[in-house]
Parts: sequence; structure tokens; C-alpha cells
Amino acid sequence: MPSRFERIDAGLMRWRADDIPWMMVSMFSLAALPPESIMTNPQKTFEVLCQQFRDASLIESAAELLEWDERTGMPSGGGDFRARQVSHLRGLVHEKKTSPKIEGWLSELDGWDEAVEPNEPIGATIRLLRKDFEKQRKLPQDLVEAIASATVRGQGSWERARRADDYSQFQPALDEMISLQRQAGQTIAEPGQTPYEALLNEYEPGAKVDHLTQVFADLRKDLVALVDEIQGRPRKAAPLLDQKFPVAAQKSLSRKLAEAIGFDFERGRLDETSHPFCTTLGPSDCRILTRYEESFLPTSIFGTLHEAGHGLYEQGLPQDWYGLPPGQYASLGIHESQSRLWENLVGRSHAFWQHFTPLMRSTFPSLLGDVTTDQLHTMFHQVQPSLIRVEADEVTYNLHILVRFELEQALVSGDLATDDLPTAWADLYESTIGIRPPSAADGVLQDVHWSAGLFGYFPTYTLGNLVSAQLFDSAQSAISDLDGSIAKGEFGPLLDWLRANIHCHGRNFTPDELVQNATGRPLSAGPLMGSLRGRYLD
Amino acid sequence: MPSRFERIDAGLMRWRADDIPWMMVSMFSLAALPPESIMTNPQKTFEVLCQQFRDASLIESAAELLEWDERTGMPSGGGDFRARQVSHLRGLVHEKKTSPKIEGWLSELDGWDEAVEPNEPIGATIRLLRKDFEKQRKLPQDLVEAIASATVRGQGSWERARRADDYSQFQPALDEMISLQRQAGQTIAEPGQTPYEALLNEYEPGAKVDHLTQVFADLRKDLVALVDEIQGRPRKAAPLLDQKFPVAAQKSLSRKLAEAIGFDFERGRLDETSHPFCTTLGPSDCRILTRYEESFLPTSIFGTLHEAGHGLYEQGLPQDWYGLPPGQYASLGIHESQSRLWENLVGRSHAFWQHFTPLMRSTFPSLLGDVTTDQLHTMFHQVQPSLIRVEADEVTYNLHILVRFELEQALVSGDLATDDLPTAWADLYESTIGIRPPSAADGVLQDVHWSAGLFGYFPTYTLGNLVSAQLFDSAQSAISDLDGSIAKGEFGPLLDWLRANIHCHGRNFTPDELVQNATGRPLSAGPLMGSLRGRYLD
Repeated sequence: MPSRFERIDAGLMRWRADDIPWMMVSMFSLAALPPESIMTNPQKTFEVLCQQFRDASLIESAAELLEWDERTGMPSGGGDFRARQVSHLRGLVHEKKTSPKIEGWLSELDGWDEAVEPNEPIGATIRLLRKDFEKQRKLPQDLVEAIASATVRGQGSWERARRADDYSQFQPALDEMISLQRQAGQTIAEPGQTPYEALLNEYEPGAKVDHLTQVFADLRKDLVALVDEIQGRPRKAAPLLDQKFPVAAQKSLSRKLAEAIGFDFERGRLDETSHPFCTTLGPSDCRILTRYEESFLPTSIFGTLHEAGHGLYEQGLPQDWYGLPPGQYASLGIHESQSRLWENLVGRSHAFWQHFTPLMRSTFPSLLGDVTTDQLHTMFHQVQPSLIRVEADEVTYNLHILVRFELEQALVSGDLATDDLPTAWADLYESTIGIRPPSAADGVLQDVHWSAGLFGYFPTYTLGNLVSAQLFDSAQSAISDLDGSIAKGEFGPLLDWLRANIHCHGRNFTPDELVQNATGRPLSAGPLMGSLRGRYLD
Repeated sequence: MPSRFERIDAGLMRWRADDIPWMMVSMFSLAALPPESIMTNPQKTFEVLCQQFRDASLIESAAELLEWDERTGMPSGGGDFRARQVSHLRGLVHEKKTSPKIEGWLSELDGWDEAVEPNEPIGATIRLLRKDFEKQRKLPQDLVEAIASATVRGQGSWERARRADDYSQFQPALDEMISLQRQAGQTIAEPGQTPYEALLNEYEPGAKVDHLTQVFADLRKDLVALVDEIQGRPRKAAPLLDQKFPVAAQKSLSRKLAEAIGFDFERGRLDETSHPFCTTLGPSDCRILTRYEESFLPTSIFGTLHEAGHGLYEQGLPQDWYGLPPGQYASLGIHESQSRLWENLVGRSHAFWQHFTPLMRSTFPSLLGDVTTDQLHTMFHQVQPSLIRVEADEVTYNLHILVRFELEQALVSGDLATDDLPTAWADLYESTIGIRPPSAADGVLQDVHWSAGLFGYFPTYTLGNLVSAQLFDSAQSAISDLDGSIAKGEFGPLLDWLRANIHCHGRNFTPDELVQNATGRPLSAGPLMGSLRGRYLD
């Protein structure tokens, strides 16, 4: 019989922590770094610099756990205190990451020959920490505070406006936010850069608006044509989808899918939440969360594959560099490329469902007992133009982004006044997607982003889709019979290719460099269109 | 259909945090305190002092969450980093709580007339923070570090020794620990106090060894007689206990029991773990954890009631004073009295099971469909002297503690050498409990406490049992027909009485004062013996 010891004693050991202060001395802090005065060489300076960020990551990841917990199981009464905990810890992280000591260490490291390679871990670390630090220093504290406070107010007024379906309630906050973000963009812009591009580069380092504009224009033309073509054909019905799929079985399926594609459950978890996400709480603790809808099976299947894709990237980043640039993801677009690759390129492929048809049959014997791979493929390839981005299918989704990309550029440049935004939004939806929103709530008020000051963020979604397809295309060339492997449930070759071409590089390269190096060409719309046409027109 | 928005956007919002440093400015830190120079009056100084400890509690409770998570669901690979996170945060807490600024604030508050009442919140706060601070200052840093490091080594060697059933592998670490703890006790002892009493007072402020020795002697005499008397009678069998109780049903039962006695699930959670405990992560976030054994139903029932009792205390502490003495528990003994009161005095009572017999029948229809209250009472009142403290029943449990209390005093005073400990242990077990341990693993090596430097800790278990019975006794006098209320499932009157007499006072009174004020008399063995005789001899 397991002993009772553990119960009572463990409980008391817990309270005890409060009581005997001398027991609480951090063992970690005992292993002190050498005093700064005896730092005689760059290697030591570099270690101290890294330690500063590693320490920050210890606190930052605790804040991430606080937020994970808030969204998985915190009692409802805990909200106020939790907000203060997170805020306090994030404040400590901010202090650590912006400490004036960093500047001194960085200048000691000027010209260190170990740091000469800009894309090797040491060189990249110093280069990127310097870049981050300089950008930070450019931003005046009053602007930082104004943005922080406008963000809180902006989200509040956006929520109220959306609930009331009344754009005018949000417009003043939006005006203020645009003006602040424009200032921030101007402040951090490099010579020759527009404020919008500077904002975009916060999420997508090195991305050029000109290049994006051109790629997105190609994509728009091809997508509009594809949507027309799909809509001109008889719609393939998927009656099996309109059933109730027990949540317990969905959970077991989700775990098996995540495990199958390589998500490491020794170094991660899969949980349930109302708003799925992926968060990393340490070099070997990545948490993905998904949502289960009894009446819509794809939510959990593709939600899990999406988050597991994010998780595979996080689990593939160099652990030894956790908290430092070589251990960080390259950009939001690259992160999204990893989730979309597993969700769409792999997870919607015929080969994938060829392998998993038996699992679907056995998981839902009374609902899908005789399902065929073709039926599953049809179930997961439904297209229908709609008003709401986040409900959009894989094909029309990017059109929603292209509308926003165009509008937010005009808002930041001042070419579009917020007075004219609702009409401009409706016009663009009509010309791009073919539907005019009947209300602000279903139109310009549908997204949280602008209220939170996120300008230059939307394009990263479509970048993720484009990159995912271009990477998958190259992986198919590099790996012999990749489709055949997938059809056998062998995902290792693909994951290894991603590890070697994307994951292992952390933030050492820009997204454009990663794409160029991995695929041998700059980003274009071709591979995504090829994949969509292949899967939706067959 | 719930929108897809939440999934993908929430995910990206998460990663974003890393990317836009100016968003991360803590809103909390913006609400800055006035600079110290303009602190012109004690009220302001008091607020700054309190803020220092409130800030510490924001970090400390994050460390508690890290540990809670470690014991509920952290992926196995996350252990190393988690240890560093906890250690780092605890180091920050230690820094905050021992900042030299505190001394200055405390001396500014000397003689402040708002603080004149030592047991009112303000007076108690200043008095106890001063006491904590002065004790801390007495301890030399090298002793603190030696103890921290001996604790880590001590637990390691204890684990190895226990696994090998070889006391000699643990003895050197034990010698070192005793010597260090003796030094610590000498250092913090008040005039006229023995080192052992000083150590005891770390867990049980104000407790006197002389008084304890006398109460424990009475208890021992009476318990030995009671055990003899019970063993002289025919044993009541409880065959219904020897069944497999499905864990899912036990979980539902545990939640209902915790809810029934008043544990607030808006401000707390009940989870499963292998080593049950109770932890508090904020003024409205108390987590209790229990364990389910299919083949031993009482584990979860009494484990849950025990932890819920701890939880009720935590939930009853003044929320506004969270992180400060008026919001802290009074002592380990008082904490344990709350868990034991609900576990044993309430949870094993005939009245309790009178109310819950129908629930037991409906929860386990095929196993306990016809169970009677008397049968349940018998199931939960089994007595059998045994070797292992943590497996001991309610009656013999305290005898195990009395043995340890006697031995650890002799170890700290030097009257007992560790060479002679195994024999002394075995002799005392034989004379007190009537069994001689056949091995060190089942004898002197069974507890973690001494290896972790916890001397003076064991008596708090028995103190908890004694206090629980004396409080319950007084509650019965104060509340008309308490048994009748319990038999109707009405626990509010008892909880209200505990809130008013114990919980609301936090740490403002010593345990002895709390007991005297609540029960009108000093602690004695009588009430516990009365309860045990009443329930075990009927």
C-alpha cells in the first residue's frame, strides 16, 4: 500500500517553506558568478551577458506558466491576483533585459574574434542582443508607457464596440493607437524604412514590404481564380461530418496524432482549453492546447496538428541556447509555417489520411466505421467564402489577410482615415472575397489585433502559409518518396529535414535567409497555389 | 460554431510577447510608489514596507505554482529547468524579504501609535516582521549556506541509505545536520531557551518544551491504555472495505465532500497527485491535491477531507493581508489542527456518515448499495499498532510522534549519539507501541525530516491532533446541537466558528494564545482522548 507519509508530510513540507527562511536560500544563487572586476576576457564577458538573459528566461518562463495555468485551470477567483503576478514578473524580466550593464558588456565584446560569424551562435547572439538593445534604447519611456496604457484601453473599447456592433465606440482608441504605433515605427525605423515596415519587422525581421506586396498580389490573383473555379464545380458533400463525435474519443485521437508526427510527450503536454495555443515553459517543457467540439471534428484534429506543429518547432530549437537568440524562433511567419505545414500540407494530404483511415474507423466505430480515405479527404477540403477570417477555410483564409495588409498600411501611412475605414473594409471584402459585411461586428470589428497595437502582424499569417508550402515542396524534392513515407505513418524524414533546415538555426538567420537557404529561392506564391490546386481541384 | 479565431490568434499572441518589448512593460510597475524621500509619515512608511512583502508574495506564489505544476503534470523532461526556475524565484523572494531597506523602515515605525496593539493587524505586522528580520540577521551567511547545502546532501544520502536499508550510509550526514541545526538553534535562541526549543519555535512560535513534555506524557499514558483496551476487545471486521472502488467514482465523491464542508471551488481546485498536499497560489487560489487508491477507499476520502481542512483555513485567512503576517497561518500545529479537525473529528464522526450514507450508496451502488452508517463507522475506525508512522491509524499515530519527540531532543542536546540512535529507536518503539522494527528502513530511516534538517517539526503533528480535538470540543459547547447540524450536512456553523476563532486572526496570535482564546483553557490531552475513546470504544 502506498504510504500515507507522502500525503501528510508533503503537505507540511509545503507550508514549511514559509517558515524557515534559511532553508530558502537559493542553491542557484550560491553558485555565484565571478565579480565583474575580474572579468578579464571576452569569453567571460560573454558568459555573464548570456547569464543575464538566461536568468531573465527563468522568470519569463514562470510568467508563461502563470498564463498557461490561467487558461487551463485557475479558479475563477484567482484572476486579479494572477494579473498582478504576471505583470510583476514581466516587469522583472523587462528590467533584466534592459539593464544598463548590458550595454557595457556588449561594448566589451566589440570586435571579439569569436563573434565574427554573424549566423553562428556566438556571433548571432551578440549581434541580435545588440540590435534588440539599441532598438529598445531608441524608444522613449513615455512612448512605451503610452502604448502600454493605450493597449489596455484599446482592447477594452474594442470589446465594448464589438459587443454593441458600433464602430464609433472604438474609433477614438483606434486613432490613438495608430498615432502611437506610427510614432513607434518612425522611432525604430532604419534609414529608408517606412514606419509600417519597421513595425512589420518587429514580427518578421528583415521582411520587405515591396517584396511582400508583390508576392501577395500574385497570390491574390491566383486565389481569386481558384475560388471561382472551385465554386463553379459541383460541391462535394461530406454528410459524415454532420455527426456528434464524442469528446473522449477525440482526445485520444488528438494525442495519437500529435505523438505520431513526433511531438515529444517527455518534453511536452497536450491539454484542453477554450482558446488553443502553444507555450514553452523551458527547454524541455512545451505545452500545446487544443479545443474539442463535439459537433465539429476538424476543430480538434487540425487544431492539434497546428499546435503540435508549433510545438515541434519549439522542441527542435537548440536547448542549450534557451533564452538566447540561437534558442529562439526566427519570426512569427516561420513559426506559423511550422504549424501550417503539419496542419495543412501534411495533415490534409491524401497520404496522411491513407495512413490514418484505420485509426479514424477504430476511434469512431459507429460514426466512421466504414469511412474511406477519399471521404476523409473530402471532409477536410470544404471551401466556402465567408465574412469572418477565423472561420475561413484554408483557401479563402489568405484573402482575409490580404485585405488587412492593404488597409493597415494605409492606416499607418495616413492615406486612410479611420472615418473611412469601415467603408474601405467593406469595399475590399466585396472585391476580394465577394461578400459585403452587413455589420461592423462581422467586418472591421472582428479582430483584436489593431486594438492591441498589432500593426504589421497580420501578414505573418499568410507568410506562414506561403513558407509552409515552399518548405514542403523542397522537402519533397530532398526526401525520396516523402508521400510514401507519410502514407506509412513515417514522419521522421520530414521532421529531420525541418530540424536541419529550420529548427536548429533558431533566430540566427532572418526568415528570408532561412527560406532561401532551405529552398534555394526567394519566397513566392507558386508552391502554396500548387498545393491548394492539387488538393482542392482533384 | 465557436470561432477558429481564438485558437490561432491566441496562439500567436503568446509568441508575440517575446517580440515586442515595449508591450511588456509591467502595468503594475507604472503605478509607482512615491519616492522614499517624500515619505513623511509612518503611514506611508508602513505602506512601503507592506508593498515590499506583497511584491515578494507575487514572486513566491509564482514559485509555488511552479512546484504545484511539477507535481501535477509537468512533462518528465522539464525537471532540471524547473528546479532552476524555483530556485531563482526563491532567491529573489529571499532578497526582497531580507533587503536592508526593511530595517530602515522598521526603525522609522518605532513607537508609531497605530502599531501599539500587538495583536491587531498593523501592530502584529510590524512586530512579526521585526522578529523575522532580527532572527534572520542573527544567522551568519556561512551557516545558512552550510545548512542549505547539507540539506541537499542529507536528503540524497538518506534516500540511498533507506533504499539500501543501511543506517551507516546516512549517519555522517545526520551528524553534520544535527550539529548545524544545534548551531542554528543556539544562534536564534532567546535568553534561557534551549536550542531545541528555538528550533521548535520556527514551526510553532511560542511553544514551550516543558508544557509539551507534560501534555505529551499524559497523552502517552492514556493512549497506551486505550490501545490495550481496544486490542483486548474482539476486532470489528469491515469486509466491505476489501473491494475495488472505481477511481472515477472516488473522484466525484471527493469533490462532493470537499464542497459540502465548504471548500470554495471559485477560489480553489482539487486535483490528483501522487503525494497529496495543499498549496496557496494567491489570496483566492488555494489548491488541494489528493490521491486515489482503487483498493483502499479511505485514502481518498480522508486525504481529501484532510487537505480540504487545510484549504478551508487558507481560504479563511484575511485576503487583504495576503503575504503579510495577518494573512498568514499561525503555525504548523494550527494548520494541522484544521486538517485533522475535518478529517477526524468531523469526517470520522457518526453524524457525518449519517448524512453521507445515501451518497456512499449512490456513488458505489454495486459495492456499498446497502451499506449502513454503522458499517461505514466501523470501516473508518480500524486500529492496529504498526511500524510505519505514515501508515498508522488515528489512535496509534501520536505514539509514533512521541517517540520522535523524545529522540530528537536528545539528539540536539547531545544526550544521544547517532551511534546509539537505531537501538534507542527500536527500544522506544518496543516500549511505546509494542513492536520492534526488524530493519533500519522500517525504523529510524523511515522519515525524511531529519535528513532535511527538520528538528522540532514532528511535535507539530501531534499538536495538530490535540488542538483539533480541543477546538472541536469548544465548538460543540458554543454551537447548539453541532452533531445535529453535521448529521444534516450543515457545516456552516462549525466553519463560521473556526473562521471567527482561528482563521481571521492569521498569525496575529501565537498558537497558545489562539487555543486559550478559543477554548478558554491551555492545551491538554483530555479532549483528544475523549474523542478517541468515544469513537473507538463505542
